[in-house]
Amino acid sequence: MIEIETCKSVDVIDITDQVKRTLRESGVENGLMLVYSLHTTTGLIVNEADGALINDILSLLQRIAPRGAGYQHDRGDGNAHAHLQATLLGNSLIIPVERRELVMGMWQKILFFEFDGPRHRSIFVRALAD
Amino acid sequence: MIEIETCKSVDVIDITDQVKRTLRESGVENGLMLVYSLHTTTGLIVNEADGALINDILSLLQRIAPRGAGYQHDRGDGNAHAHLQATLLGNSLIIPVERRELVMGMWQKILFFEFDGPRHRSIFVRALAD
Amino acid sequence: MIEIETCKSVDVIDITDQVKRTLRESGVENGLMLVYSLHTTTGLIVNEADGALINDILSLLQRIAPRGAGYQHDRGDGNAHAHLQATLLGNSLIIPVERRELVMGMWQKILFFEFDGPRHRSIFVRALAD
Repeated sequence: MIEIETCKSVDVIDITDQVKRTLRESGVENGLMLVYSLHTTTGLIVNEADGALINDILSLLQRIAPRGAGYQHDRGDGNAHAHLQATLLGNSLIIPVERRELVMGMWQKILFFEFDGPRHRSIFVRALAD
Repeated sequence: MIEIETCKSVDVIDITDQVKRTLRESGVENGLMLVYSLHTTTGLIVNEADGALINDILSLLQRIAPRGAGYQHDRGDGNAHAHLQATLLGNSLIIPVERRELVMGMWQKILFFEFDGPRHRSIFVRALAD
Repeated sequence: MIEIETCKSVDVIDITDQVKRTLRESGVENGLMLVYSLHTTTGLIVNEADGALINDILSLLQRIAPRGAGYQHDRGDGNAHAHLQATLLGNSLIIPVERRELVMGMWQKILFFEFDGPRHRSIFVRALAD
């Protein structure tokens, strides 16, 4: 389990190194890595860890599902936009494992998106052997 | 296989209990649960099973890809919006399994989205052991 | 690994037959097929391989995240829209395997989306036995 303290209401964290560490400790040679967020207002993607691009992704999500746009769920929690943005990204990833390494392209990083922080967040990570 | 009869053109069904039952019957201790819809106009997500939130998700999808907005595919089937909305959600999920239980957060449920009902729908569900 | 030369800046390729061939060569009887693009400006979905529908999907993505809409990342690479569109689809798929066959519905095909071509692209494909 990767435990994260997010720092802002919206936050993006590159967890690639933590996932790689979990893989090394597992000793798995070939198979897949499962990365699964336990939350309903966070997302996980594989893409480039470039600050400008991350701002573009956040702007896009805010444009598609803006905060406080008269959502029914906002009558309770006030975080409907965070659920909607999370839904568009998804809450889990799988990454191939070969010869004890993640199979990832040159620009690929594992990015965790917080949409309703700051909070303590838990991400389940496990290598499954073939 | 989970078999569902959807009741409306758009319908959302919480299948968490059925997936848990399949896991129990499998006897798998550790690994992952694969949930895969066999259809091209349905979606699967993990999020909160709150009726207000589900209405917000459906409104968002209808706003992004409204029914009958001059799509090329509508010249044939008339259900292009259903394919588009399904594409934004995805048709499969994976959920970790530990000690014979799904690893899910407090608010997480497995939600099946029908976008072109009412129909008979089949969802493949299988536990894979580590 | 499936190797593809895409032909246009935006291109969609049905890779179902190549994935099936990889499955046959693997000899795996039951488990899952992992399909994973190594790139940050491509996407993978399971949906219908209908040219009209594919045009509708591309139009939708272009409407949500149009090329050159003042993105921060465009100051460098000029391909922010391609990253954004890729993010909405995701870069990996899993498909169940039973009795040496992919478990797919009648209309389901595995579609690879190029958003920043033409380029050489690599898609990792592996069957994992249960």
